[in-house]
Amino acid sequence: MIIIGEKINGAIPSTAKAIAKKDADFIRNLARTQTAAGVDFIDVCASVENNVELETMKWLIDIVQEVTDTPIAVDSPNVHTCIAAMKFCQKPGLFNSVSMEGDKVDLGFAAIADTDWECVALLNSDKGIPKTAKDRLGVFADIMVKAKEYGIASSRLHIDPLVEMLCTSEEGIAMVTDVIREIKKQSPTIHVTGAISNISFNLPARKSVNMGFTVMAMTAGMDSGILDPTDRDLMGIIYATEALMGEDDYCGEYIRSYRQGIHGAVKK
Amino acid sequence: MIIIGEKINGAIPSTAKAIAKKDADFIRNLARTQTAAGVDFIDVCASVENNVELETMKWLIDIVQEVTDTPIAVDSPNVHTCIAAMKFCQKPGLFNSVSMEGDKVDLGFAAIADTDWECVALLNSDKGIPKTAKDRLGVFADIMVKAKEYGIASSRLHIDPLVEMLCTSEEGIAMVTDVIREIKKQSPTIHVTGAISNISFNLPARKSVNMGFTVMAMTAGMDSGILDPTDRDLMGIIYATEALMGEDDYCGEYIRSYRQGIHGAVKK
Repeated sequence: MIIIGEKINGAIPSTAKAIAKKDADFIRNLARTQTAAGVDFIDVCASVENNVELETMKWLIDIVQEVTDTPIAVDSPNVHTCIAAMKFCQKPGLFNSVSMEGDKVDLGFAAIADTDWECVALLNSDKGIPKTAKDRLGVFADIMVKAKEYGIASSRLHIDPLVEMLCTSEEGIAMVTDVIREIKKQSPTIHVTGAISNISFNLPARKSVNMGFTVMAMTAGMDSGILDPTDRDLMGIIYATEALMGEDDYCGEYIRSYRQGIHGAVKK
Repeated sequence: MIIIGEKINGAIPSTAKAIAKKDADFIRNLARTQTAAGVDFIDVCASVENNVELETMKWLIDIVQEVTDTPIAVDSPNVHTCIAAMKFCQKPGLFNSVSMEGDKVDLGFAAIADTDWECVALLNSDKGIPKTAKDRLGVFADIMVKAKEYGIASSRLHIDPLVEMLCTSEEGIAMVTDVIREIKKQSPTIHVTGAISNISFNLPARKSVNMGFTVMAMTAGMDSGILDPTDRDLMGIIYATEALMGEDDYCGEYIRSYRQGIHGAVKK
């Protein structure tokens, strides 16, 4: 599982407060704890007013790079911010994100075309978030046409099928797992990602729903996730699921990550 | 999910101690807490010397029935003990278990044939535990022939595909989930059960493995489980998985069970 650590995001109240107060130590600590949890990318999303977004991204990225060499995911709903933020990064990271909305996919793919950057691509378009599996797979097909046009290998793409809250659903997540399965069938080397905690919005005991979703999505083919890597229960179930799926002979990685303190009960 | 509460079992050291000391309050408490967690059956397994097994079963069953009217699962490796223990029960329960080993299936099925008792049937035979999905499904076919012979509806059967420890596996649980899927395909009204915690034997942080297994097995079709119903994390992920599978509109049961205190963080 490719882990994208979600904690440096101005949409999280404690992080927003640290950004507002320019509390560099708080951000440094988030970078360190996520690195210790073994993340593959550290997501950086400012979530501030447009006029200060880019300078805030630079401030955050500089702080993260002071303490870790884990690659960064430049994260903004504004594709121009992502493009501009790429140059603050000392090494290739993850462009988060493009979609078939407006000219995002063209601008984003052009920016990463001749680089080693990877890219998150959301399955929405100018028509919004498609309601059916068929329509989401239609957007996926459009994205793949663009990827080919810009010469971006599918192994550099993390397709986000768009995880929506369970509490308003009568059907569970069958549509999303169908989309994941079909994407992996069409393109075995592509990554499928998602913002795990969206699933449990508005529900109590959110952890159980997040964990159940993670297992079901991984079983369907999700191999990348935007999540809180300091959630030891969630990390435990991710390692457990890899072993249960037969991807971890004799549970070697499961046991190693437990010994490293990434999951399991906190030792008192 | 049909929950079979596993805690009144002499194989558990604290329960063994209570049995040895004839500590009725300890057993009463296990019956009460499992009832409060909403179990469908309370398993009763003495795990004592043969010469005192039946009297111990009677003692345990009498105590359980003092405090709850939840049906009992009479549990012994000795099919004669199960048959004799049935008459201690005030209402039909679960016969745990038969298999294709020796004359167990004939004796067990004959005993429950004209009753409302349900029955756990394990997929082993005189040759032991089959190593392949094909051979386990062969034992399943033999059991179904016997069920037909004794007129036992498939809806009264809980097939246990036999959950083995993950730590010695290179393949994960694909074989078991294949068996579950095929059983439910052949017989949609049958129940598939299993002793969940067997999967995590010899591993650290067993809860994560138990939970991951539960989600994957439920997704494959397992709809019954022998487990610790006071494990709030496990109960939470079971309710979450039912909602994620689309079996709980708007998460009504998930929220109700949370409010009842069956899962979620313990309120301090």
